Amino acid sequence: MSLLVVGSIAFDSIETPYGSVENALGGSATYFSLAASLLTDVRLVGVVGEDFPDEFLRMFEAHDVDTRGLQVTAGKTFRWTGAYAGDMNEAETLAVELNVFGEFDPHIPEEYADSRFVFLANGSPSIQRAVREQAENAELVVCDTMNYWIETANDELKRLLGEVQGVVLNDQEARLLTGRDVLVDSGKDIMDMGPEFVVIKKGEHGAILCSHEICIPVPGYPTGVVRDPTGAGDSFAGGLMGAIARADDLSLAGLKRALAYGTIIASVTVEGFGTSTLEKARTEDIEERLEEFREMLSL
Amino acid sequence: MSLLVVGSIAFDSIETPYGSVENALGGSATYFSLAASLLTDVRLVGVVGEDFPDEFLRMFEAHDVDTRGLQVTAGKTFRWTGAYAGDMNEAETLAVELNVFGEFDPHIPEEYADSRFVFLANGSPSIQRAVREQAENAELVVCDTMNYWIETANDELKRLLGEVQGVVLNDQEARLLTGRDVLVDSGKDIMDMGPEFVVIKKGEHGAILCSHEICIPVPGYPTGVVRDPTGAGDSFAGGLMGAIARADDLSLAGLKRALAYGTIIASVTVEGFGTSTLEKARTEDIEERLEEFREMLSL
Repeated sequence: MSLLVVGSIAFDSIETPYGSVENALGGSATYFSLAASLLTDVRLVGVVGEDFPDEFLRMFEAHDVDTRGLQVTAGKTFRWTGAYAGDMNEAETLAVELNVFGEFDPHIPEEYADSRFVFLANGSPSIQRAVREQAENAELVVCDTMNYWIETANDELKRLLGEVQGVVLNDQEARLLTGRDVLVDSGKDIMDMGPEFVVIKKGEHGAILCSHEICIPVPGYPTGVVRDPTGAGDSFAGGLMGAIARADDLSLAGLKRALAYGTIIASVTVEGFGTSTLEKARTEDIEERLEEFREMLSL
Repeated sequence: MSLLVVGSIAFDSIETPYGSVENALGGSATYFSLAASLLTDVRLVGVVGEDFPDEFLRMFEAHDVDTRGLQVTAGKTFRWTGAYAGDMNEAETLAVELNVFGEFDPHIPEEYADSRFVFLANGSPSIQRAVREQAENAELVVCDTMNYWIETANDELKRLLGEVQGVVLNDQEARLLTGRDVLVDSGKDIMDMGPEFVVIKKGEHGAILCSHEICIPVPGYPTGVVRDPTGAGDSFAGGLMGAIARADDLSLAGLKRALAYGTIIASVTVEGFGTSTLEKARTEDIEERLEEFREMLSL
């Protein structure tokens, strides 16, 4: 089923205790698209500068990511530089050059008008709302956010939360947004703001799915190979939404299964630098790891 | 099957954002015993002072905890004062009075000589080793430890790890003991020190079971009621060992199931102050919550 994502596309320079990479393809929409493309076709809306190499475009296309919604504008592509240390649960941002992303005015092209599943990656809530309004035929709209918007655009963010069916955010963000320390409480409070389900990501510790009936934990997949956590959260969201779009199943069981896909695909992402392992992953690898995970969790 | 625990018995004074309690029954062996007693008979080895009230002894006995190994000596019982804030993942210790526990010389009484399952709660590794030596007929000896011993008695702790079959410790301790940030790596390194399995506790995020074949994550049970985390780790260990002793099953499936019991019983402990909810819990409540947990985790 048609899955649309709106988010950032970037050149990332990353340093971790296991190595470094410069000007690698990154950004929320990049990780999301590649992750979701393992499960369904993806439509990408984003912006890049004139410096964006054709090979990256071809790589998206080779992964069945539709790039007709990609704007190429005068200027340079968004650049992010970050580093990780210790348990690598949090990136230290060393430099940000928004470049063309700073003026991003997302537009859903005519060809994408029938998109039924829409993900609004982290961005300004007012821009997310503008996109949400364009997604007229969407059955399910899910958004991400971050501390910066919770602190600086709180009212607008809460308006957005009243207009989406789901939200994906991390534990710190959930606590900041609600002022509640217990994540189950945070999840319930966020549902009171509008969404029908809330997914709280906890990095290596997995995620919690909160619906009006129940909160369900899904642990992280215990990969022993953690090289670079960049994009793990966006890969998780891509796997989640890809699984929902593929199965067209919004039941609790369907959502739970989708969280597991997100978990598995995120575990692949962190095993290499940038998008390297995600680009190489095959759907059958994901299914195999999911089967192993299902076995691990069966009591 | 006969399960023996050696550890501390204390009077705890605790403050959390949800209230406070003074001179409540606490200590590692207390939580462990009450937790394990929901699944099997427990034999307690510990020390208290002359100020230890009869009602506490009767409470243990009412829970089928055998207190013939409890030494009552001249002096006062161990006292601990602590507080929790924020997400309550870590206690701040405000005061410690070791009292009679400072001179604790554990002795396994004749009546307990046939104990097949033994848990050495957190304590000096040299004392843990002395107990381990007395546990001649034990089929399974599992120990806990803490940062203090990792830092001040590292060699002795490593000797102990070569003499036990299992170890239960938290994520910080696992990282400190091995110098490895990825928990799966920590688990493997600890197994290289001797144990056949390692359980790494992660507080609200659950635990990881590492065996030589595989590492398996078990998430925390998402209780929305977190009042006082004191004793959660010891309750987890008690549930774990109680389940192992009851089922007499050291297979991977048996250990995984035992981790789930530990998780469930720990979730009951944190729902009230001190041992209050644990004391009231019935085995059927635990089985019911475990069934719910199994359903949550089935993909």
